[in-house]
Amino acid sequence: MSTADSVKVFGPATVANVSCGFDILGFALDEPGDIVTAHKTDSSGLSFSCLQAKALGIPVDSELNTASAPAAKLLKDLGYRGGVHLELQKNMPIGSGLGSSAASAAAALVAVNRLLDSPLSREELVPYAVEAERIACGAAHADNVAPAIVGGFVLIRSSDPLDIVSLPCPENLHCSVVHPHIVLETRHSRDILKKSIPLRSAVTQWGNTAALVAALFMNDLQLLGRSLQDVVIEPERSQILPGFEKARSAALGCGALGFGISGSGPSLFALSESEAIANLAASKITEVFQDLRIQSEAFVGRVNAEGAKIVEDQH
Amino acid sequence: MSTADSVKVFGPATVANVSCGFDILGFALDEPGDIVTAHKTDSSGLSFSCLQAKALGIPVDSELNTASAPAAKLLKDLGYRGGVHLELQKNMPIGSGLGSSAASAAAALVAVNRLLDSPLSREELVPYAVEAERIACGAAHADNVAPAIVGGFVLIRSSDPLDIVSLPCPENLHCSVVHPHIVLETRHSRDILKKSIPLRSAVTQWGNTAALVAALFMNDLQLLGRSLQDVVIEPERSQILPGFEKARSAALGCGALGFGISGSGPSLFALSESEAIANLAASKITEVFQDLRIQSEAFVGRVNAEGAKIVEDQH
Repeated sequence: MSTADSVKVFGPATVANVSCGFDILGFALDEPGDIVTAHKTDSSGLSFSCLQAKALGIPVDSELNTASAPAAKLLKDLGYRGGVHLELQKNMPIGSGLGSSAASAAAALVAVNRLLDSPLSREELVPYAVEAERIACGAAHADNVAPAIVGGFVLIRSSDPLDIVSLPCPENLHCSVVHPHIVLETRHSRDILKKSIPLRSAVTQWGNTAALVAALFMNDLQLLGRSLQDVVIEPERSQILPGFEKARSAALGCGALGFGISGSGPSLFALSESEAIANLAASKITEVFQDLRIQSEAFVGRVNAEGAKIVEDQH
Repeated sequence: MSTADSVKVFGPATVANVSCGFDILGFALDEPGDIVTAHKTDSSGLSFSCLQAKALGIPVDSELNTASAPAAKLLKDLGYRGGVHLELQKNMPIGSGLGSSAASAAAALVAVNRLLDSPLSREELVPYAVEAERIACGAAHADNVAPAIVGGFVLIRSSDPLDIVSLPCPENLHCSVVHPHIVLETRHSRDILKKSIPLRSAVTQWGNTAALVAALFMNDLQLLGRSLQDVVIEPERSQILPGFEKARSAALGCGALGFGISGSGPSLFALSESEAIANLAASKITEVFQDLRIQSEAFVGRVNAEGAKIVEDQH
């Protein structure tokens, strides 16, 4: 493959935590997502632009932006002396619990890597994005960035040192995501968590995370459904999410395998064994928010197996 | 298959907990184990005998013994009106952390089930043995009895309701078990555990349990090794196990993938990728106890994939 002069990449939204897998599990979605275009320039160093930056309150300083900062580090590590311009098209809602900053970082890293003829593997790009998450939320989490870059379900065995494992995903598994227009701060959402938990609850949780992983390998959707239970984080966080219990009943009532908070919320997700059930679950959850006079948007699709996607590659 | 008149079954020792999998994981060994012989009698009901009962302090009342009590319940549930005699040959050390009562229960249940022409599957026998564990240790745990009956690595997603998942096992995985002659009470060993744990430790633990399961499915022994870490239970229990740290260093120093406490101890186990390393680890751990003037016995073998084994089946 010859080197591209301009690369456009879609960085996908991701569902982190996945009920029982707090801080260790995430999967990628087909939509929504951000678009990053990277092209070579005649100058040197990295420049960055985002048309919606002012409107969305995104920093345009390339050292602070979660798309450009990891890309700059990547260029530096690769010893690239030429110029690169990154343009971010921010389509994803910020503070949605859908990994907005991770989507931008994934798109930027995959674009820049491709621009330089892919010297690094997808897995090797993940640490750069983890560093960017530290900028965005004050802690180095990989449960959004890893699936946004490599796709599918990803297990983060350890964040430090980083140790990620790509898990298989049943083909007929469909996800419904509903993003209610409520403002939650990720930091606040972490602050409400108790610092210690009962050993009994912890055992229940690691039984479920272990079984969830087994279910993915075994393609056993019933086991997957039984495992999608969070006895530790959800009881705390659901308290600050209006409509949570009703949305859960609605989703499970129409046959979804499991339901939970996407990341630290406010978005909610359901996993289902068919597109029909996933569509129904999405509309039922949406109705719950309509009744509460809360606007929301819904997305339904398969789990995105490939992660960030090169949509244009020009020479 | 015609009905047997006499069946002799070997019930294997098991390693429960397996480092990070406290209360949710266990695997079966090839040795040691107990032998139960079941034969039909002309009377009705279940009778029970064990030559070593007095010497070992095992109850011979068939309602209280962990081999006969679940077998009696099984016969009752199956509506069997004839007579059955169970003879237990107790080869396993009691209070070793190797699932001694589970080995007896597994052997008795598989023997009685076979005597009646196997009306139940192995999985269906597990709940009977879980009930027997309640007699033995005051709590209904399946992490010894499930692998003792069905073999291999078994995940217990939930004890109540019982939900068990058989996991694959890498073929070249070898286990070293060393039983030091120290007396620990299981109840005491549970009492020293803290009732609540830091959320951070819990997350580390469920990252490791999830990765351990993935490693078994992926046949990835290096990942298995990285996952065999217990940051919750081992730091507490190892305090009452003389020689623990030295034994760990010795096992890992000669190349074992992981090392930990078997069940609630005092037995220790190591998992290795070859028989040679497993033998070396066993002898190095044994030396640690020799230096402490503690007698011990060692067992080395593959993980036992079939569980309790019918060794004689006479018509």
